[in-house]
Amino acid sequence: MRIALGLEYDGRAFAGWQTQPSGNTVQDKLNQALSAIAGESISTLAAGRTDAGVHALMQVVHFDAPVSRPLNAWVRGVNAHLPPSVAVVWAREVSDEFHARFSAFSRSYRYFLLTHPVRPALTAGRVGWYHQPLDIDAMRAAAAVLLGKHDFSSFRAAECQAKSPLKYLQQLDISESHGLIRFDLTADAFLHHMVRNMVGALVYAGKGSLDVAGMQALLAACDRTKAPPTFMPDGLYLTGVGYPAVFDLPTQAQPERLTLWR
Amino acid sequence: MRIALGLEYDGRAFAGWQTQPSGNTVQDKLNQALSAIAGESISTLAAGRTDAGVHALMQVVHFDAPVSRPLNAWVRGVNAHLPPSVAVVWAREVSDEFHARFSAFSRSYRYFLLTHPVRPALTAGRVGWYHQPLDIDAMRAAAAVLLGKHDFSSFRAAECQAKSPLKYLQQLDISESHGLIRFDLTADAFLHHMVRNMVGALVYAGKGSLDVAGMQALLAACDRTKAPPTFMPDGLYLTGVGYPAVFDLPTQAQPERLTLWR
Repeated sequence: MRIALGLEYDGRAFAGWQTQPSGNTVQDKLNQALSAIAGESISTLAAGRTDAGVHALMQVVHFDAPVSRPLNAWVRGVNAHLPPSVAVVWAREVSDEFHARFSAFSRSYRYFLLTHPVRPALTAGRVGWYHQPLDIDAMRAAAAVLLGKHDFSSFRAAECQAKSPLKYLQQLDISESHGLIRFDLTADAFLHHMVRNMVGALVYAGKGSLDVAGMQALLAACDRTKAPPTFMPDGLYLTGVGYPAVFDLPTQAQPERLTLWR
Repeated sequence: MRIALGLEYDGRAFAGWQTQPSGNTVQDKLNQALSAIAGESISTLAAGRTDAGVHALMQVVHFDAPVSRPLNAWVRGVNAHLPPSVAVVWAREVSDEFHARFSAFSRSYRYFLLTHPVRPALTAGRVGWYHQPLDIDAMRAAAAVLLGKHDFSSFRAAECQAKSPLKYLQQLDISESHGLIRFDLTADAFLHHMVRNMVGALVYAGKGSLDVAGMQALLAACDRTKAPPTFMPDGLYLTGVGYPAVFDLPTQAQPERLTLWR
């Protein structure tokens, strides 16, 4: 029986999603907790392999359950075995055709950036930070260049394992409220560090160091060495994964779990 | 020269505000950082002594500077000596009549409570949690009983050091969005654990275990042993301190530093 899970986690506590010999990754903790409930070894596959320090409001994973348990055991039972900074939010039985990674047609990420002379303290590790105001209109103009299907090699980390640098960026919205900037991005898939590299370039656009023509040239160059530095992971959240409706899975995080301030 | 500071901190990292032999309190860290900048020992006084695990969006403190420094040294210079989870947000020179505690005529606190079957993970330690929906109208009706000047002994911790249990509760607003409940409270001053004890009683009201008459009887009893348990510190934030306008200090946290989700 194949089970899909929706996961929420605070990435500061972990060395990323993907299992490591250290054992201090989200996947390691989840596999251990699931195995404790099943009484047998269970391993999981995820929609997106988030880096160290990157958070998830909705990561989706699947596994094949070697034993039958009520769905609630895969939520509350597993949560009793997980550290405080990670939780299973939902569990659904899915058909064997479902694959958390290969069935996904889109991933959505959000990046929060605080622009303020003083670094964040209450939200340390949970928002990116830039010490000066940024020009939102200039950032939006530069962002528009990136929309669509492109070779995103200029925004790709050297260690990226994707087969192709061609990705379709469907959304790159920038909103701002009282100096807190929010980037919302959706693509079929993202290259390694692609969001953080784009945010780095957009910060350059916002401070006047990269105009629309510069962003066009950067995208066309297909050369990571031409691009501004990768921005810090702190403000990055995996917020949703898109699957065909036939699987009947939640595609966005539940609103009550999103909200902190205001 | 007397200096007032506005402070922001994540209470999870500290054993409360007040200095302790362990040294792991906000006051200890702040005194050390200020002393490093001054080159002499500095000690501070705060508007409100927050407990372990309680956060601040705007704590106000004062100290007497033994040396003259540009105001920015008391912000950025001090922040370079503070841990990531605490920051000075502003510094102002004030007259010698100013006292962070005794000049304050009000304190404002906010409490966030997630009502959801699954415990918080991304916001672990930063919101309170109850596993079921609560009746907001019933909570509001019970909250109205508490407004005004009362002997709040029923909501006072045994170890409270306040001279009098008489406090004036000016505000107790309850709002709700998608299962996240927000309590906003303002009083001249609060007794030890008063907000957490009130939230505990209001959760009882919301789940149908305490009606308006019950809240009236509880308040009138002036007896802590009659009241529901103290609620967890996780969702509690000191959000502002009221001072006479003559001191010309910020009384609320800056909006860009408040916001996380939405």
